Amino acid sequence: MKAELQCLPCLVRQAREVAMISTDDLQLQKKTMRSCLKYMSETDLDQSPPEIAQGIGRIVKSMTGTEDPYREVKSLHTAAALKMLPEMEKIVTESHDPFVAGLRLAIAGNIIDLGAKEKVSDEDICSVLSEAMEQPLCGADPLQLKSEIDSAKSVLYLADNAGETVFDRIFLEQFISEKVTVAVRGAPAINDATLDDARDAGIHRVARLIDNGSGAPATVLSDCSGEFRRIFRKADVIIAKGQGNYESLSSSHANIYFLFRVKCNLVAEHSGFPMGSLVLLKAMDG
Amino acid sequence: MKAELQCLPCLVRQAREVAMISTDDLQLQKKTMRSCLKYMSETDLDQSPPEIAQGIGRIVKSMTGTEDPYREVKSLHTAAALKMLPEMEKIVTESHDPFVAGLRLAIAGNIIDLGAKEKVSDEDICSVLSEAMEQPLCGADPLQLKSEIDSAKSVLYLADNAGETVFDRIFLEQFISEKVTVAVRGAPAINDATLDDARDAGIHRVARLIDNGSGAPATVLSDCSGEFRRIFRKADVIIAKGQGNYESLSSSHANIYFLFRVKCNLVAEHSGFPMGSLVLLKAMDG
Repeated sequence: MKAELQCLPCLVRQAREVAMISTDDLQLQKKTMRSCLKYMSETDLDQSPPEIAQGIGRIVKSMTGTEDPYREVKSLHTAAALKMLPEMEKIVTESHDPFVAGLRLAIAGNIIDLGAKEKVSDEDICSVLSEAMEQPLCGADPLQLKSEIDSAKSVLYLADNAGETVFDRIFLEQFISEKVTVAVRGAPAINDATLDDARDAGIHRVARLIDNGSGAPATVLSDCSGEFRRIFRKADVIIAKGQGNYESLSSSHANIYFLFRVKCNLVAEHSGFPMGSLVLLKAMDG
Repeated sequence: MKAELQCLPCLVRQAREVAMISTDDLQLQKKTMRSCLKYMSETDLDQSPPEIAQGIGRIVKSMTGTEDPYREVKSLHTAAALKMLPEMEKIVTESHDPFVAGLRLAIAGNIIDLGAKEKVSDEDICSVLSEAMEQPLCGADPLQLKSEIDSAKSVLYLADNAGETVFDRIFLEQFISEKVTVAVRGAPAINDATLDDARDAGIHRVARLIDNGSGAPATVLSDCSGEFRRIFRKADVIIAKGQGNYESLSSSHANIYFLFRVKCNLVAEHSGFPMGSLVLLKAMDG
């Protein structure tokens, strides 16, 4: 999915958030924002939004020297989500269809994307849980995904934000198997999960855990490692969490199920689902 | 009021809106946005937000050749507001305090700021009218303003958006006098009223009408004509409508009553009133 002009205000907002969390020095924040604006004035606007965001992230990192600005925030989000683990396990156990309940919880994790917000209240999480369990799920039939997972030799799960991976873990427990691999970002990218974050969430206990070798807040295949690309090509089913993965992989020819909440107008238009929808979308060419 | 980094996403959003309404040519829109981003990467960020917005407006105008991109939209807004004139006159006539009712209607006009939205439904206007009549008014006492107007030799009223001037007209009718001058922008600036727009709203029937000689979407004194600055300095009371005028004049030493709805976090922080408040604020040094 190519970026549109309407992505620019959002990318500037994101650049400012990353700059502010990377340094307290207001002059350095200003200088960093100037560099980000200049980069945006020159970059190829036909890239996907996460590719432009990756460029912004590189600038902020090189100017502020902060390697993983969201490290602490990510830990707080993961810890808050882990506190809810028993509650989530109860939801799945008591459900008449644990696979669908787990899938809905994985979407709940995507709803909860907290950005740089440090405090996560139990109420925040509880309201998101009940929203994810009650709101209609648009797109593909979850049972079709389940059947594809059952018959697949290899399943690749592309994670998204750090706190979200705790929710993914509950879903992954519904089809725990040696054939399942979970991939996280290869370097810090906004609040997306890296290997450390995914281990904090306990993902390594329910699946093989790898990183994709890239620091984009998405899955930009050309920026990923050869090893990741090999696993990606070999996977019979890919589950891609979050808008970033949709934006970067929507034109891929792999057998991908995108699982995300629609959070912006451009993705709403591109996917055909209205803002706020909870979506399980099978890639066109999958 | 100086711009802050949080203004940048908003200024980019505004730049895109102006670029899109100025030309249908997507390539030219992209080129224009690149120039705006480059300008923002280089401009003095200690200016007020409307000063930066003026620079953006100049770039869009020079690149697209469109002199007054909001001309048609402004006419539609003015026509929609004029249709409500009898209703507004009824509200004032039936009120136990026509001055306060008129002042509240003037704020209603500021609430209704429609940007590039072309269609204005009667429902839009009705809901805004009832909101403005019912919501508490923060800040100064309207009767203090009334008393200052009564004893002043000259009153200067700084208008804001085009459709809003119809609402201003109802307020101005409550203190109709030869001593009242209404100033609009000296050149097109977003959807702000120029002389043509103010005449469409009938402002010339209730007050002396002038322009400030500037194309900023605010009152940037250094950019205004000498004639306007003379009237500004001589005025005993100035009523300044909208956030733009507040952003550009909040550090002025003139006797200004700002009349606006708080529409962004920075103005909320700077003015001390929460988002969405209806505010009549007397300048600190007034």
